Amino acid sequence: MTKRNALRIAAFSALALAACSPRAEQEPSAPAAAAGGNGSVAALMQARKLAEPDVTAALKTYTPTGVHDEYLMFASGGHSGQVLVVGLPSMRLLKVIAVFTPEPWQGYGYGDQTNALLASGNRDGQELAWADTHHPALSETNGDYDGKFLFIGDKANGRLAVIDLRDFVTKQIVASHLIESDHGAAFATPNTEYVIEPTQYPAPLGGEFAPIEQYDEKYRGAVLFWKFDRAKGRLDPAASFAIEVPPYMQDLADAGKLVSDGFAFVNSFNTERSYGGTLEGRPPLESGASQNDTDYLHVIDWRKAEAAVAAGKAETIAGVRVLRLPTAVAEGILHFIPEPKSPHGVDVSPDGRDIVVSGKLDTHATIYSFEKVKALIDQKKYIGSDPYGVPILPFEEAIRAQAEIGLGPLHTQFDDQGNAYTSLFLESKVAKWNLAEARVIEKIPAHYNVGHIAAAEGDTVSPDGRFLVMINKWALDRFHAVGPLLPQNMQLVDLSANPMQLLYDMPVPIGEPHYAQIIKADKLAPIDVYTPVGYDPIADARAADAVEATQERIERRPDGVHVYMTAVRSHFTPDIVRVKEGDTVHIHLTNVEQAKDATHGFAIGSHNVNVSIEPGEHADISFRAQRSGVFPMYCTEFCSALHLEMAGYLLVEPD
Amino acid sequence: MTKRNALRIAAFSALALAACSPRAEQEPSAPAAAAGGNGSVAALMQARKLAEPDVTAALKTYTPTGVHDEYLMFASGGHSGQVLVVGLPSMRLLKVIAVFTPEPWQGYGYGDQTNALLASGNRDGQELAWADTHHPALSETNGDYDGKFLFIGDKANGRLAVIDLRDFVTKQIVASHLIESDHGAAFATPNTEYVIEPTQYPAPLGGEFAPIEQYDEKYRGAVLFWKFDRAKGRLDPAASFAIEVPPYMQDLADAGKLVSDGFAFVNSFNTERSYGGTLEGRPPLESGASQNDTDYLHVIDWRKAEAAVAAGKAETIAGVRVLRLPTAVAEGILHFIPEPKSPHGVDVSPDGRDIVVSGKLDTHATIYSFEKVKALIDQKKYIGSDPYGVPILPFEEAIRAQAEIGLGPLHTQFDDQGNAYTSLFLESKVAKWNLAEARVIEKIPAHYNVGHIAAAEGDTVSPDGRFLVMINKWALDRFHAVGPLLPQNMQLVDLSANPMQLLYDMPVPIGEPHYAQIIKADKLAPIDVYTPVGYDPIADARAADAVEATQERIERRPDGVHVYMTAVRSHFTPDIVRVKEGDTVHIHLTNVEQAKDATHGFAIGSHNVNVSIEPGEHADISFRAQRSGVFPMYCTEFCSALHLEMAGYLLVEPD
Repeated sequence: MTKRNALRIAAFSALALAACSPRAEQEPSAPAAAAGGNGSVAALMQARKLAEPDVTAALKTYTPTGVHDEYLMFASGGHSGQVLVVGLPSMRLLKVIAVFTPEPWQGYGYGDQTNALLASGNRDGQELAWADTHHPALSETNGDYDGKFLFIGDKANGRLAVIDLRDFVTKQIVASHLIESDHGAAFATPNTEYVIEPTQYPAPLGGEFAPIEQYDEKYRGAVLFWKFDRAKGRLDPAASFAIEVPPYMQDLADAGKLVSDGFAFVNSFNTERSYGGTLEGRPPLESGASQNDTDYLHVIDWRKAEAAVAAGKAETIAGVRVLRLPTAVAEGILHFIPEPKSPHGVDVSPDGRDIVVSGKLDTHATIYSFEKVKALIDQKKYIGSDPYGVPILPFEEAIRAQAEIGLGPLHTQFDDQGNAYTSLFLESKVAKWNLAEARVIEKIPAHYNVGHIAAAEGDTVSPDGRFLVMINKWALDRFHAVGPLLPQNMQLVDLSANPMQLLYDMPVPIGEPHYAQIIKADKLAPIDVYTPVGYDPIADARAADAVEATQERIERRPDGVHVYMTAVRSHFTPDIVRVKEGDTVHIHLTNVEQAKDATHGFAIGSHNVNVSIEPGEHADISFRAQRSGVFPMYCTEFCSALHLEMAGYLLVEPD
Repeated sequence: MTKRNALRIAAFSALALAACSPRAEQEPSAPAAAAGGNGSVAALMQARKLAEPDVTAALKTYTPTGVHDEYLMFASGGHSGQVLVVGLPSMRLLKVIAVFTPEPWQGYGYGDQTNALLASGNRDGQELAWADTHHPALSETNGDYDGKFLFIGDKANGRLAVIDLRDFVTKQIVASHLIESDHGAAFATPNTEYVIEPTQYPAPLGGEFAPIEQYDEKYRGAVLFWKFDRAKGRLDPAASFAIEVPPYMQDLADAGKLVSDGFAFVNSFNTERSYGGTLEGRPPLESGASQNDTDYLHVIDWRKAEAAVAAGKAETIAGVRVLRLPTAVAEGILHFIPEPKSPHGVDVSPDGRDIVVSGKLDTHATIYSFEKVKALIDQKKYIGSDPYGVPILPFEEAIRAQAEIGLGPLHTQFDDQGNAYTSLFLESKVAKWNLAEARVIEKIPAHYNVGHIAAAEGDTVSPDGRFLVMINKWALDRFHAVGPLLPQNMQLVDLSANPMQLLYDMPVPIGEPHYAQIIKADKLAPIDVYTPVGYDPIADARAADAVEATQERIERRPDGVHVYMTAVRSHFTPDIVRVKEGDTVHIHLTNVEQAKDATHGFAIGSHNVNVSIEPGEHADISFRAQRSGVFPMYCTEFCSALHLEMAGYLLVEPD
């Protein structure tokens, strides 16, 4: 402890907190004088070796019991396949939304409805029981998050999912089978007309085979525009389309907004078209893709593309209407601009005027002016075209400025004061810089290797400032050792402090968040219970086999034994199910409760069955009773004092 | 805000923290005067509406960047099937140990080693891809947690798993197939000679069928004693045994310690032998099992049992050596004592002298004296026997005292001051009471419906006091709404405060913790990397197919294509794999790095393959290349600035 700190603590010690007012939640019989616990600020600082910035950080983040967080952050879960919901400023994990990976606590993938949803994401009979979720996108209205839906992409298998924020439940999984992977997915247009999904690793479109030696001729990327039907809350594959792009590696994307509405911007790296071959005498991709000084920013006029598709100029591949490269060029839909070496982030400023690109092997944030880009396109002022005929706009005339920003810049966010924030992977810092002046103001260290960053409402037309989260890739020494596999570290930064203040380290041990969006919590209005009772959350309707109390029954039908069952604290009706070995069993189970948080689970031993039925929810469960025996069925959610007694038996009589 | 509070805040306002010393981690170029962020304690209290207890709570829990937690809590994940590791006092989730459920971020269940481990827990060909984990037990030496191993049971399928705390990895899953479910699993004896797993729901032993009408005659419970081989770090099924018990519902267990070492205590409810039948004119179990005023505490002399098994007095059922009921009675192994109505927790005091039982439909904590119990057993002072011939000891002569404690008592923990703490589910409180005097001292509210509680080193011969965690079942209004499925709420309580102080609410949205154990963090010494390079964590040995750098190769053999691959930042060798449609492919993949946190992932698109290879780790991956095409392979863990370039292709040529 520094001398100065010691003095300060001494000054604090006059200020004991021992005699303070009781909180409403405290036990009424407890002596009011001590309800705050023993200890003063000074004593606690000394005992826990807290410096003064720690005290302010603690008070800026601590969220007392029953007090709600101001913001919710939706972060991808990386190869966990899920989405994480974190409260700010407390940095507490409030929910893990099961999306692409079975999750038994939520009964996700352990009952008929969710099994079917997951199966809809399989490919050619191959079960895909995980995903690599990368970029969550909140639905937008007029360029602002509207709190209604969330979209999330799967890099590994080129899929997208839709989550409804009424109940925080995954409703749809779509896979085009046009592409083999994505990266910059999902990004929403300003009124969520489309959700954008560009390819990451090129491959022959539509799942065809071609030898790697035909990479230049046969391998391609694509930028998919998935049409969103807001009334239905689902993506509409039949109304969606794609634009074929060259076999570079397309990366992040962003939609234009306000003045640039109608455009989409997609980064690319590996314009070298390297494809590795480490055992075949060729360099690895990491060096092969790092030869050129520039790659190509893809500028897409999606309204023109929409019109071209409507005019029948698309070709259908793997069920997707695709605007082939020559068409995209001929129609003026696709233009390229050189961008600094191996870029990652492309981010449109809140006013839609600037497009900020960070080349991860460059030291700049490069600011393209949409006005200039649009003028160059309109004037057809090209410096040439790429090998695939795509016209290239002149770099110098397209940019407004370049900010000398640091090593390994990746991704940029914005605040409400005209500042931009860019993550610097190699420096392990975030740079705050003035967007108008392209001038760095200050940097804050990350611990360690910051990837993406997310600012409060940071992708909208009206960012809030206030908070920034650094999504760090390495934790190293930040937390107590837990074996060779360490958590990630998401660090909360106070943007309203001058200089920026590090507030909190949140370990993330359930996947690797790549990107996040942060929304003001009061924009969300989730439901507490499902109505009407018997609701199927995936179909978003009352289930055909919903069961009312007193209507419980067991029926043997040609397709098996149908059990119409209800759950209520603390019993199932029926609680004894008698079948014969070999029977197919269909359990139709309704939680008839309407009290908030009155969730039940339903499991059957040795049958891999578990559903979570929230108040009013209905679930169907189908299985074959393959082995004779006596199998406990019980409620897996501790629902009442007599929860352990909420049980029964599946009796499978030998054939 | 109360007037008193406002005055207090005014008094604070003199104490601005604006000019304070910088932290070492802060950006050196930042002005020292402001490194703490703006704002004073008073201003922050006012801005965030913090009361004084909130300030002390914040300072008692806030853990600055890089500072490590003092305790680690191992909590079961309920029907998530996993184990959660939480740091105290920060209440941050540090790890989720994948145990019974596939977890792709850890590659658990998406590669050969972990697939085989999970498959070892299947039953009769039925895949079991989840579990209902309930009671974690840390390994013990002389009755103290030794920080070496963790055991966890699966209620749904009657299984146990072993986790090694060197690398926090699940090493073994065992299932006896003697029983159909468990509850009070796992509990370790004081030197981890055995891990105890009692049945929850009775069924015919060994998986036989019997109609429910033969419940009394054919249904049984069992208490399994799994022998632990500490040198191997594995349970030894061949050296394990079980004791048959009547078809009551056995519940929690605890091992005796010090004076009571050699004994185990197991609760039971439903001595009524009700079995529901809500659609068949019988009462549900919740009322059928709540008729009697007392149930039976099972007192088991496990050393006598061990001797009887060694003497050949066991019968083998489903591969398990079982001491049948008449043998257990004849050998003096099993005794009953009445216990208050429908008990849940049975907890042995740190000195081993008291056994505290809470009947959840009773209002007492009942304290049995081991000394008295032992004397009654030695004197064979029985008041009769149960319908299965088990001798019953007199309740009044076995107890030392009863504490009038409140509504719905469930589970008891202990501190270092002679106090006990008992959760009260129906009151939503925890009662602190003096164990010697059986007198309640104070109660603290829980939010809401507290189930189990865990105190620091609370199950050992030397509890630490200091912290208690309330594992609450309902969250209701505590956190921002996230749809009908709400998180649980684990609340941290400061036991050193007088009165007890609520410190922190931790939402738990990834399963329902039933029980937890809290160990001093410095007892753990996890490894950072695997050595030697090529290590298989499940086999705990260097893998047969470990790959060294320069030894990478692809071999076509009769059983398929073998790919010997290494991973290092930022490429795989080989990065191009060429096979033919229909080929079986075996990838042998070694992460040859030895830098801490240098974890790589390896995924293949559309093939449901993903492994996480920590530094030095080896994994094998086998699959059939069923569809021709071009499939990206890439690193799923953001390992370096050129992580996106750590990629290659699986080329499947048409047949």
